[in-house]
Amino acid sequence: MKLPAPVMLGKSRIEALSDGVFSITMTLLVLKLEVPEVMHHSSNEEMLHQLLAIGPEFATYVVTFLIAGGFWFLHHLTFHFIRQVNGMLVWINLLFLMMVALLPFSAGLMSHLLIHPVSQLFYYGNQLAIAVLLNVHWFYAKSMDVLESSDRRQIRRLTIRIAVTAAVFPACLITAVFLPAWSWMPLPVFLVGGAVFESR
Amino acid sequence: MKLPAPVMLGKSRIEALSDGVFSITMTLLVLKLEVPEVMHHSSNEEMLHQLLAIGPEFATYVVTFLIAGGFWFLHHLTFHFIRQVNGMLVWINLLFLMMVALLPFSAGLMSHLLIHPVSQLFYYGNQLAIAVLLNVHWFYAKSMDVLESSDRRQIRRLTIRIAVTAAVFPACLITAVFLPAWSWMPLPVFLVGGAVFESR
Amino acid sequence: MKLPAPVMLGKSRIEALSDGVFSITMTLLVLKLEVPEVMHHSSNEEMLHQLLAIGPEFATYVVTFLIAGGFWFLHHLTFHFIRQVNGMLVWINLLFLMMVALLPFSAGLMSHLLIHPVSQLFYYGNQLAIAVLLNVHWFYAKSMDVLESSDRRQIRRLTIRIAVTAAVFPACLITAVFLPAWSWMPLPVFLVGGAVFESR
Amino acid sequence: MKLPAPVMLGKSRIEALSDGVFSITMTLLVLKLEVPEVMHHSSNEEMLHQLLAIGPEFATYVVTFLIAGGFWFLHHLTFHFIRQVNGMLVWINLLFLMMVALLPFSAGLMSHLLIHPVSQLFYYGNQLAIAVLLNVHWFYAKSMDVLESSDRRQIRRLTIRIAVTAAVFPACLITAVFLPAWSWMPLPVFLVGGAVFESR
Repeated sequence: MKLPAPVMLGKSRIEALSDGVFSITMTLLVLKLEVPEVMHHSSNEEMLHQLLAIGPEFATYVVTFLIAGGFWFLHHLTFHFIRQVNGMLVWINLLFLMMVALLPFSAGLMSHLLIHPVSQLFYYGNQLAIAVLLNVHWFYAKSMDVLESSDRRQIRRLTIRIAVTAAVFPACLITAVFLPAWSWMPLPVFLVGGAVFESR
Repeated sequence: MKLPAPVMLGKSRIEALSDGVFSITMTLLVLKLEVPEVMHHSSNEEMLHQLLAIGPEFATYVVTFLIAGGFWFLHHLTFHFIRQVNGMLVWINLLFLMMVALLPFSAGLMSHLLIHPVSQLFYYGNQLAIAVLLNVHWFYAKSMDVLESSDRRQIRRLTIRIAVTAAVFPACLITAVFLPAWSWMPLPVFLVGGAVFESR
Repeated sequence: MKLPAPVMLGKSRIEALSDGVFSITMTLLVLKLEVPEVMHHSSNEEMLHQLLAIGPEFATYVVTFLIAGGFWFLHHLTFHFIRQVNGMLVWINLLFLMMVALLPFSAGLMSHLLIHPVSQLFYYGNQLAIAVLLNVHWFYAKSMDVLESSDRRQIRRLTIRIAVTAAVFPACLITAVFLPAWSWMPLPVFLVGGAVFESR
Repeated sequence: MKLPAPVMLGKSRIEALSDGVFSITMTLLVLKLEVPEVMHHSSNEEMLHQLLAIGPEFATYVVTFLIAGGFWFLHHLTFHFIRQVNGMLVWINLLFLMMVALLPFSAGLMSHLLIHPVSQLFYYGNQLAIAVLLNVHWFYAKSMDVLESSDRRQIRRLTIRIAVTAAVFPACLITAVFLPAWSWMPLPVFLVGGAVFESR
């Protein structure tokens, strides 16, 4: 018995699952921020000192939230052009979401051991895996011939943005090996560059 | 190569991400309520005493849930009028959601140290940041010329409501400095005022 | 200045927020189930003994999940008939969702102190509050004249079901006072009755 | 009084609740991965050693995420063909989601006691319950005569895939009794077989 070709599916449910995984991941990041154990009668100075002590965790929360938001936005843009999905594209997206859901763990590792090489390699490695799978997703989608055909220049622009995303995290990884304390630098450079690129 | 103008996107996915972040944040608030450690053979009086001891946490849960619900409603109302989004509006919304997702942390700080000035400043500061970003979101959306044009008076009314939201939290902050135990007062005043305003 | 009447809003976003709060609440219930601390070399009998020890928590999980599912279904049915919402209906729904989001706390209290009167009163009181707010929601929606008008008999049927829901939890509360160990009884009676009612 | 037949409901909200429960369950799995407690001054070797020590938990995360993703995909495919739902189908889906929401507990049991027979029986038993309820859901949906009628061969193909899912977990269970260390084997066999089946 020859079975029929796989069905083409609407995109609304993979979008809904993605929005769910992204919103939960981004909200769970804050659970890593532990409320400092202080007393009612502690002075304002002690209290501020305690809050400043969780500064690295707070910075990790902000940076990871914004990176995750950026990935969500690029993923959203790809589905602006994709009209339909098949089984293979669903599985690529599930692997992508599996790496996204790992972010609270990587962020926890990062914020507890801020300048430790191994935690940095794990953190940026997780981000790189997300970026690579986003590229795989987008190249496969383009090869499937299910895109809106009207916007060739917009599609080329998005391809560049997604490819650049996969370049920033190797830059972080290399910096982490040689200058652990400065490994964050490629991120603001990329964010500012992206904003300039966006506003052109 | 001159790149094309940024794409205008449908609003459904930023709405879905927002609904996700709000629903998770509001549900996670309850995880801060710790089930009291009592024994099977403890008396009803001991048990009630334990439940009353978490009264401040319970009050913080109720108040924060309702404030978050109010922000969600105002955000919902803005998207009633917004027809399309662009990249800048998405990023303003991601910053807004980052501050919303911080609420379980701020609420935890508040309920453990109820009348401590620093925890109050952090809590109302978080709410103020949400309110300010909601105003930025709404002013940017109005400037983009993507609103439904039919309802000018409704839009003006919503502008007033969103602006007033950004005024209640400075009132709480100022009260927290001088009368920490009464810093909640502007909230019921505002809620009752809002209800009266709504029913006109 | 006389302000315009409140806007009528689409129902999709309050549905999305409700689906979010319900799905998170129902999934968080399982976090109350603690993985027993046993050793790799413990015997199968010891292991089974440990699993049986969390039986009461497991039963609470199943019962609370199904009750929450029932509330979600009734809430879903009301929105099958409601065409539009206004500000008041949104706020009634936010109060309803606040009580739904409290279920993991109530379930935790219940499962740690299974036959303790105070925990039972709290648990069924929470369920009763949800049921009462669902009735308020439905009566307000009917009074707003925003229902699909075609299905008068279906609407009357739904009204009966929602009213009966508010009756089962007082039955549990009364049983909890006199026969704590049998306070669950009204639930299966109601569930079986509901299934019979449904299949007519 | 003879009551009317149960209403037929749109499928969008049970889909939204399902996407919510699946995305939360899949994201909560990662919370079982505990960030290792190491010091800032610990060597890279100690750090890597700590990360390798949570290898079994990591493997359980990856495997459970992919199995859950597979169940989500099959559930999604059934709703591709289902046009409407009734009360019975909603309740079958709630039982299905209750078993899905139990996965973080089963995965926690599995990863702490990797080769222990009882934890394996519980884990695969949970997966089997999900698979059985998915079959019940699909057989009931087919019997309701609410499917898109155009794609008979696609529907037969999906029936086979869902039935096979219910066969792989008994295979794991039997392997777990005789060769606990190899009980995972039926999963990659099934996954590769499924991929081959898909690409035909």
